[in-house]
Amino acid sequence: MKNEITLIKVGGAVVEDEDRLQRLLTDFAAIGGRKVLIHGGGRKATKVASQLGIETRMVGGRRITDAAMIDVVTMVYGGLVNKRLVASLQATGVNALGLTGADMSVILSDKRPVRDGVDYGFVGDVRQVDGHRLTALIESGVTPVMAPLTYDGAGHLLNTNADTIAAETAKALADCYDVTLIYCFEKKGVLRSPDDDDSVIPVITPEDFERLKSEGIVSDGMIPKLENAFDALEKGVSRVIIASADNLDGTQGTVIKKR
Amino acid sequence: MKNEITLIKVGGAVVEDEDRLQRLLTDFAAIGGRKVLIHGGGRKATKVASQLGIETRMVGGRRITDAAMIDVVTMVYGGLVNKRLVASLQATGVNALGLTGADMSVILSDKRPVRDGVDYGFVGDVRQVDGHRLTALIESGVTPVMAPLTYDGAGHLLNTNADTIAAETAKALADCYDVTLIYCFEKKGVLRSPDDDDSVIPVITPEDFERLKSEGIVSDGMIPKLENAFDALEKGVSRVIIASADNLDGTQGTVIKKR
Repeated sequence: MKNEITLIKVGGAVVEDEDRLQRLLTDFAAIGGRKVLIHGGGRKATKVASQLGIETRMVGGRRITDAAMIDVVTMVYGGLVNKRLVASLQATGVNALGLTGADMSVILSDKRPVRDGVDYGFVGDVRQVDGHRLTALIESGVTPVMAPLTYDGAGHLLNTNADTIAAETAKALADCYDVTLIYCFEKKGVLRSPDDDDSVIPVITPEDFERLKSEGIVSDGMIPKLENAFDALEKGVSRVIIASADNLDGTQGTVIKKR
Repeated sequence: MKNEITLIKVGGAVVEDEDRLQRLLTDFAAIGGRKVLIHGGGRKATKVASQLGIETRMVGGRRITDAAMIDVVTMVYGGLVNKRLVASLQATGVNALGLTGADMSVILSDKRPVRDGVDYGFVGDVRQVDGHRLTALIESGVTPVMAPLTYDGAGHLLNTNADTIAAETAKALADCYDVTLIYCFEKKGVLRSPDDDDSVIPVITPEDFERLKSEGIVSDGMIPKLENAFDALEKGVSRVIIASADNLDGTQGTVIKKR
């Protein structure tokens, strides 16, 4: 029987809310056994970029990462956000280690090709997560804290969506572990009515997903999040849950099921 | 017989000179066997702070690190500088891992107390380097790349002089390894005449050091660097060399000797 491991992905909005973040870190520290924290970046990078006189350009809700912007996200995500999380977790007794994909080459990615005339710049699509390296760290008692930055194998960091990093890391660890992946954010789960915080959909199967999409109940950023979740389940991850950052124990929120 | 390990400390001025840095990284990659890179920060933090509207205050050549400034140095040293070094080293085949003192609590420090009315703020004096953790990483084939940031054990990163981190790390590794510590910078070694780049003093013993200080040949930042070096030698480090970033093989520069 495989050992259990819990992967928690925390979004930028939670990272930026100091009170909520402290509660989340306390709850994360209370999770027994092996665990990994994956964090997003949030708007702090946009704010720092603006103060540095660097314009933030978005296409279809996605950040264009030029040479100046990859330096900013490396500073903010890889430095400020990641190291503050590591320091805070150490204070709660979690032996945290901050990682980008370049550290020990744990996450290799490919620079996204120009498509339909859109050049996203230094943005990476994950090619491979080194599950062996991560497993060795985890078995030595370390809790990886992963920033949304990957490595192109040729000297460059690439900006990468944290939801994707969470799903790919979960898949890579599924060979060795019984993996629970929890996407946590500011809502209680996937909501039937966006304005009703208690309208959490308890379970979503692939058939439900198609229906919810066609009904327009699931849209925008939730679609790739759910696609990532189903992909992770297909590739051996045991459980995927979308929940509030205030409920890390997996007892509430929306459970994503293979069938 | 202990295995050999080489620690290279590279200063901020080298980190900021792109051509010189690339040569240094190539030379670092060529060093056989176990190794560690410790880097300084340089003026980039001052520049970023200024762009973010944060004033840099210095007392006696040392940076006052208030709450806003520790965020800046965490971004710049722990994020930008550290992760770019890691990515560049990975591209040369070195299995680099970026570390601050908070990561796995490898370097604990004490916040410097207010003395003579001067509050340096979030500045740390090293208490303990975890040689066991570092040794385990190194023996697994990893090359630590250490940023000039330490950890207070209570959730906070502290700004710490990179020369000190290099010496303390060298001492902590001396239990397990035959340690060579090379401080490399933009000059060829400790110079007898600051304007003559070929006036390198080949060897400095403690007696030489006292004479050179009294003659004013060694002054300013070189004094704590040499004090760090002698302390490291007293605590079991085998060799300390002060050399040019262009000569990492230890065949040139100034050799610091115990007697």
